[in-house]
Amino acid sequence: MNQSPASPDVKANRIAEVISIGDEMTSGARLDTNGQWLSQRLGELGINVAFHTTVGDTMQHNIDVLRIASERADIVVCTGGLGPTQDDLTRQALADLVGVPLVLSESAMAHIANLFSQRQREMPERNRVQAMFPQGSQEIFNPQGTAPGVDLLVDRSRPTAGHRLGQTLDRAPCRIFALPGVPDEMKRMFDDTVAPRILSDSGSRSHIRHAVMKFFGTGESDMERRLGDMISREREPRVGITVSAATISLRITATGQDIGQCDAAIEATRLEIMELVGEYYFGDGETYEQHHAIDEMLRSRGQRLVTVELGHAAPLADWFASLGPESAFQAGLAISRRGDLSDFMGEGGEAGESTSDEYWLTADRFRRQSGADWLLLVDAYPSLESDDGGPLPAAEVTLTVIGPDGKRYCTETRLGGHPSIVQPRIGKAAMAWMRKVMASENQVA
Amino acid sequence: MNQSPASPDVKANRIAEVISIGDEMTSGARLDTNGQWLSQRLGELGINVAFHTTVGDTMQHNIDVLRIASERADIVVCTGGLGPTQDDLTRQALADLVGVPLVLSESAMAHIANLFSQRQREMPERNRVQAMFPQGSQEIFNPQGTAPGVDLLVDRSRPTAGHRLGQTLDRAPCRIFALPGVPDEMKRMFDDTVAPRILSDSGSRSHIRHAVMKFFGTGESDMERRLGDMISREREPRVGITVSAATISLRITATGQDIGQCDAAIEATRLEIMELVGEYYFGDGETYEQHHAIDEMLRSRGQRLVTVELGHAAPLADWFASLGPESAFQAGLAISRRGDLSDFMGEGGEAGESTSDEYWLTADRFRRQSGADWLLLVDAYPSLESDDGGPLPAAEVTLTVIGPDGKRYCTETRLGGHPSIVQPRIGKAAMAWMRKVMASENQVA
Repeated sequence: MNQSPASPDVKANRIAEVISIGDEMTSGARLDTNGQWLSQRLGELGINVAFHTTVGDTMQHNIDVLRIASERADIVVCTGGLGPTQDDLTRQALADLVGVPLVLSESAMAHIANLFSQRQREMPERNRVQAMFPQGSQEIFNPQGTAPGVDLLVDRSRPTAGHRLGQTLDRAPCRIFALPGVPDEMKRMFDDTVAPRILSDSGSRSHIRHAVMKFFGTGESDMERRLGDMISREREPRVGITVSAATISLRITATGQDIGQCDAAIEATRLEIMELVGEYYFGDGETYEQHHAIDEMLRSRGQRLVTVELGHAAPLADWFASLGPESAFQAGLAISRRGDLSDFMGEGGEAGESTSDEYWLTADRFRRQSGADWLLLVDAYPSLESDDGGPLPAAEVTLTVIGPDGKRYCTETRLGGHPSIVQPRIGKAAMAWMRKVMASENQVA
Repeated sequence: MNQSPASPDVKANRIAEVISIGDEMTSGARLDTNGQWLSQRLGELGINVAFHTTVGDTMQHNIDVLRIASERADIVVCTGGLGPTQDDLTRQALADLVGVPLVLSESAMAHIANLFSQRQREMPERNRVQAMFPQGSQEIFNPQGTAPGVDLLVDRSRPTAGHRLGQTLDRAPCRIFALPGVPDEMKRMFDDTVAPRILSDSGSRSHIRHAVMKFFGTGESDMERRLGDMISREREPRVGITVSAATISLRITATGQDIGQCDAAIEATRLEIMELVGEYYFGDGETYEQHHAIDEMLRSRGQRLVTVELGHAAPLADWFASLGPESAFQAGLAISRRGDLSDFMGEGGEAGESTSDEYWLTADRFRRQSGADWLLLVDAYPSLESDDGGPLPAAEVTLTVIGPDGKRYCTETRLGGHPSIVQPRIGKAAMAWMRKVMASENQVA
């Protein structure tokens, strides 16, 4: 039985291996993040990644690792080792693996030479090696750099020198995609070329589209419970869930015969998701956060914002400041001790603690004095100095929004967790409160 | 020739493999950071890590991966798969690898039962499996959790079922250390037990000590050039260099017959490092940053600090606020537009741009009004919105320190780089400038 890679029964069981190449990763000098990204993308294509391997810049180790991978996986995506230096071994290792010579690709050579001339630099002779490919392999175009990728089929119908005892013969070939290690180049080449080639091996659904929806306000396990079958691996379009410092992303991946079919499938899935968890939704996009959503709401109303953060963090000021020059963010104030707030309003010198009324008057004066419409106040981020470095008890935090008419909206929250995420979670809870206040104020008006 | 693991010629060539176990990593749901940490630590012990492998929770895949590792590496450290659930396969995979049964360890059982009774919870029956060990293996004590580790020797003096053609026999055994995947537990167990056992296999230097020195103000390649042979892999004590958002860490690792010998070696290396790159040094410790150094300087003088950050970031406020309740940080102000500074000082309503004099008077009034001694001002963090998402042109930034007597110290800096680190670099350059001003002011006084 000699299966072709496009037969559907093979598709269902195809497994993949991701290989990262470079001494800087095996030595621990650099963290490999390509492997995680590729596993997510391959999973979205319905390909189960069973192994990641990282190997240094040693030729025999590279060949061994590629051989093991081509035996146990049907699709191999490797990154790194395609540069112009002596350390870059991937092209030669692939050629040795299948026992063919490297041959020059004139079109790849022309692309590399063209990149150098665009940058008005002479091409060093050593870059010539980047246009060399194992005989019989296909090129993977790299629009951003001088290292094209390699797409190579490894015949598995006969035993090799490294063949294991008892191993089945007559299998479909293993397809190896070798990409550069530079993450921006690798990602672009995977999306542009590798994903479509994998899909076309899988059958007729050769187009792919993604959408990312963002949520805040509940935990990952609650989200999974509410979504139920939506996040099953067998569902089409697929819905993947990831969490970063309490912000939840749902990534929808649709494959189809054309873009229109993909987009229609994504739209239907979006509606289903909004039915189930719409109350926590705040916007779309990989890097979209609640400060972007608040900024859009404020700009559409022509209003401006100040933040006041008391205690032992000030993430809101940093996040809102990072918005562009046209943003609605006016200013942020960070104060270690709550009683110090009045000092900054020219009320310094008064002895003792502020009373509650004075505190609110001072906060509101800051809003008006700075010419802003809205104030968002966090009182207070806890100190994260714990005795044993372990998780901290949950902190009581008061979140306050003051609106354009001076009206005050307070809520209390209790948040704990690992020290590394407790402060961003508090800042994000404050933004969720502000979105809620703005939305309800809108309904009343 | 049947070498024992302690013979010196073996030590010089021993290579290691790190294995991470769990579907959450092969699927890309979670990023594996254990592998990087272990590679760094093994490197400090003089052990070259040649391979990382990540494998999911599939029994046959686990056994295959462990067999391949035990053939090609002399030391294997694996993490994960030691929990109490059906998904946790590492114990059984190790037993299958060497062909022995799992047997109960009474001491491990007592420790697990004790942990549950301390937490006043009944021990579920399934946790009993965590006290089972492959016959002939040693326990690795876990002071923080219910999953003890496994230390197993794999005989390599005779061929196995998976034996490769042409492979040398009569080799020293491979030593496999299996640790939990929880990073805090894994790190503690590696430092407490695994590192000393690896060292004692290596010869007489069975003690190990670390020190971490922190630097800011030059790049990694300049640092490497200045340090020269200090960072050679053959040097003893070893000096490792890592960079995180422009802060450089030098980690010194000394091994010796006792702690005193290690500490003396570290001290001598510290002095050599200070000769070469002391001008950039600001303190000691894995998580120590320049805001800690400035806070110590201010507290020793009984002085307090405010920060003003103009433009599109505010990292200083967030960093300084994160210091404990006794810190010298009073407050931080973040303002999007430079011209808005005077609004916050009760000078709102004046039309037009501030003149330069007014600008400085306003900044200094903020310092005095808040009762602080020092002001650190960044003007201004650039907007990171670029057209193509690529690296940005270097931004001109003015860094200003105003001292307790109102004296002003300005410097200009040009900083560029990848958008993700440009803002923290500017904040850190501002802190370096403040440390320099405070140090020189100290000399004058």
